[in-house]
This record gives sequence, C-alpha cells and structure tokens, in this order.
Amino acid sequence: MATKGTPVPVGYQGVEGAYSYLAVKKYFNNANVTIHNFTLFEDVAKAVQDGTIKYGVLPIENSSTGGITEVYDLIRRYGCYIVGEQCVKVEHNLMAWPGSKLDDITEVYSHPQGFSQCRPFFRQYPHMQQIPYFNTAKGAELVSKQKTNYMAAVTSKEAADIYGLEILAAGINANTNNYTRFFVVAAEPVKSKEADKITMVVSLKHEPGSLYRLLGYFATCGLNLLNIESRPIEGKSWEYFFHIDVSGNLNDREVKKALREIKQETIECKILGNYVSDKT
Amino acid sequence: MATKGTPVPVGYQGVEGAYSYLAVKKYFNNANVTIHNFTLFEDVAKAVQDGTIKYGVLPIENSSTGGITEVYDLIRRYGCYIVGEQCVKVEHNLMAWPGSKLDDITEVYSHPQGFSQCRPFFRQYPHMQQIPYFNTAKGAELVSKQKTNYMAAVTSKEAADIYGLEILAAGINANTNNYTRFFVVAAEPVKSKEADKITMVVSLKHEPGSLYRLLGYFATCGLNLLNIESRPIEGKSWEYFFHIDVSGNLNDREVKKALREIKQETIECKILGNYVSDKT
Repeated sequence: MATKGTPVPVGYQGVEGAYSYLAVKKYFNNANVTIHNFTLFEDVAKAVQDGTIKYGVLPIENSSTGGITEVYDLIRRYGCYIVGEQCVKVEHNLMAWPGSKLDDITEVYSHPQGFSQCRPFFRQYPHMQQIPYFNTAKGAELVSKQKTNYMAAVTSKEAADIYGLEILAAGINANTNNYTRFFVVAAEPVKSKEADKITMVVSLKHEPGSLYRLLGYFATCGLNLLNIESRPIEGKSWEYFFHIDVSGNLNDREVKKALREIKQETIECKILGNYVSDKT
Repeated sequence: MATKGTPVPVGYQGVEGAYSYLAVKKYFNNANVTIHNFTLFEDVAKAVQDGTIKYGVLPIENSSTGGITEVYDLIRRYGCYIVGEQCVKVEHNLMAWPGSKLDDITEVYSHPQGFSQCRPFFRQYPHMQQIPYFNTAKGAELVSKQKTNYMAAVTSKEAADIYGLEILAAGINANTNNYTRFFVVAAEPVKSKEADKITMVVSLKHEPGSLYRLLGYFATCGLNLLNIESRPIEGKSWEYFFHIDVSGNLNDREVKKALREIKQETIECKILGNYVSDKT
C-alpha cells in the first residue's frame, strides 16, 4: 500500500467507532489513506465498482452469529475481488450519557446482532427495551445527541470514546471469544506470493454427489476447506452458489491442479481472491 | 392429524396474512386446529418446547434470499423436531388505503427481505422511502390503522383482503419463482412410512477432509444431498455445525448404513426429523 503521494480512498459501512471502522483502522494502520463512510453495505460495493474508492471493507462472518449473507451476494453482484482479510474482536459494552445509571436505562439502541450477542446480559434487565438500530455505533451516536439518562447503546469501547459516552457495563457479550471477519475488496484482483487463502464461488452441475466430488478434488490435492457457505441462485428454486474458502496460493502446483479438476463438476467457478489470511 | 375432538394448538410468528400464516393455513388445511400467533420466532420455538402449542410453523429458507439462519439456531436451542415441510409462493404486492395513488406513496413499510425481493420495482420509485418493519403483514396492519394516502405496505394478496387495503401494484417481486420453505416443528419426532426427507445437524471432527468424507457416505449409500447450511458453534471461532437435508426414510437400509458410517467423522449427529417433503 502507498504511504507517500496521493492518499488512497478507502470505504466502510456505518459511522466512526463501528466495528467496520475498527477493521479499516487495523488493516490500513499507518497507510496513506482517506477513510469514507457509507450508509449501506451495497453503497460500499458500488463505490468499489465505480472507482469512488479503491478499497472497501465489508464484514463477511461473525464467529457467533455466522455469515453476513447479504455481503456474499453483493460481492458477486458488484464483481468485487477480495484482496485482504481482517478479524476484529467484538467486545460489546452498554454505554450511556455520562451520569446515567444502569437502573435508569429503559431504551437500548443497537443492531439486532448486537442484542443477540448479549442475550444473557439483557435477560437480567427485562425493563430495558431493545430497539433495533442501523448499526451498533450509530446507536452510540444517537444516544450522544439525545443526552438523556434513560437511553443506552451497545457497541465498542472506541465508540464510547468517540461519542463521549460512559460505559455502564463492560464486555457484556455472552461469548468472549467473539470475532468478526472482514474482507477488504477491490475492483481488480491482486496477486501476492504471501497469499495463503483462496475464496471462490462455484455453481455445480445438478447431479447427485457433485458437491462431494468437488470437495474431493480439494482433499486429494491437499487443500484444506476452511469455510463453505451456500447462497441461493435467484430464479432457480433450491439451487445454490457455494462460496468456498480453501488454503493455498494460486501459484501452487496442487492449487492449479485442483482448479483444473473441479471444472468437471462446476458450471461456473470464479476466483474471488487469493489473499493473506488473518491468523488471529 | 386429528379432525375430531379437542382442536390442536398451532403457532406461527407474525400476524394474519403473513406468509407464515399462509403456511399454517396450507399445511393444516381442514385439520381441527386453533391458530395462535407470536411476536418472535423464538416465542414459537419456546411455545413448542413448553407444550403451549403442539406444532410451530417456522420459515427456514427463501429461494431468493437464502436460509433464515436464526431459525436454524432456534431449532437446535429449543430441541425442536421437524415433522413436516410446507412451501409457500411469495407474491408481493404494493398496497395502500383505498383511494391512494401510486404517486402519493412516500412511505413503504415491510420486512427488509420484502424490500430486497422487490429491488427493481423500487428503483423506479425513488421517492418511496423504504421503512423496515417487523414483518410484511404487520406493515399492512399499520397502513390499515393509519388510513392515510401516503403510506403503503409490501406483502401478500391475502393481507390486502384481511386489512381492507387496495393493491396499487401486483406481483412486484423481481423473481416470480420465489418460494419460502417452512418447517412444521414439534417437541417430539414423528415416524412415518411416507417420509422421504431427513434433516440432521452434525458437528465434525476438526480434521482436513472431514466434510468431504461425510458427504461421501451419503453419496455411496445413494442418498441425495438436498441442502447444506453451516452455522457457527458458539465459543469456538470458525468451527461450524452443518445442517444437512438428504433424501430418504429412516427405515431404509441405505439410510441406516449411512447414519452408522458417518459416526466416524462426526462429534455429534442429531436427526432433527424425517418428514414428507413438499414437492412444489
């Protein structure tokens, strides 16, 4: 990534303090970038496609709540390529306007996933109404604007700092081993010798055992299957695209062999990216 | 199903006119049932578990937008068994208070999936603000209460009839071949000679190729893989449960053989149900 000259435009969905924002900060660390935020995941994918931004950072999976299926579909629809991966630890906190007390809180604003990740905490506080909001950090922004003592948000510590809120309960997510995995996407694929993970999307011939045989080519070539997510093919009821992550580099002999062989089972196979995996 | 004596209590999430309600009506047709509605999917699963209702009807997958992942997790969490399957054709309509005109509509209420299924339609009407609502039929209920000429809902024809609304634009979903698949769940499994589809949930040994070998046992025993959906195992980052649908009856010799053999690859394998598939 360029560190001199014109800064590179990078985009994410949400507002400052969102987990997507933290992923951008972590991945682009000291790089010379300008950071742009968008309202929808789709806006980020569009901006990558039309060149408004060079890189988009989109959440693809949470270790507790699973794949963010909309993003899988957007990557296909807007022809994005995956050039990097970044994991961010999700640590939710209940935060409110300074001086508020836990017992005063009657309205909590967060993304539905935020609530579902903190289910046992909220079971202890049935008087707190859980109000679904655009994203977790936008909930914090709302609370900071209203300056009341009965509203709270559920989001990252960083958002509390950014919006001047006080943390009333820290680390309230049920699963303390909770990560969100982000893809860094671009309009063109990138080749890298260090890349060790391949994401592809395939549609299979409608024959019994086709998925089994597909996975067989990976297994016999020694590629480790890291993830598989099925997404419906629009207009064809109960037929699926498979988004598949395997270990390897596109220059490896075994990878080339596997990619040649799987053509026997696939109608379509597109390599969405070969990138350096985040080992955290 | 009983047609005489005490009616059997059946439940769904949403309000009358919702696609879940249509699934209940279609599946239980002329059966002697009382129909109860609940606010959340989770309330339905809980009511099945504690015996408040005998059967719950929950959407599991839409042919355009994919698996309803929350329901997969609820079936596991509340120990529900799948005893039936019902598909419902999704035909969305834009509806408003009688006398309203298409150009007057500035606010549309629906479930986010409703909007995403009608994307091309709404691209033609950028002045219509899309407001996410609890579910599609509840949007119709809201519009019928407000009696204004600028609000509309996106849902089934049946909801228009129930809430006295007028259809301004019919069949507005992009994909006219759009179905939602529902599971009928109960607290205990049911055995049936006519059952031809098996749903199971497995967790695999953390070894390379384990999913490949698992699918191999199905393939060599002649069981057709109909669906596979991965769901995260909470607390174990990037490890998954696989929800798998295969063809067959638990009494079939090949099915018994496959279920014995897959034990070599699985840590856990639970049969969630063996039921008559809906062929529509």
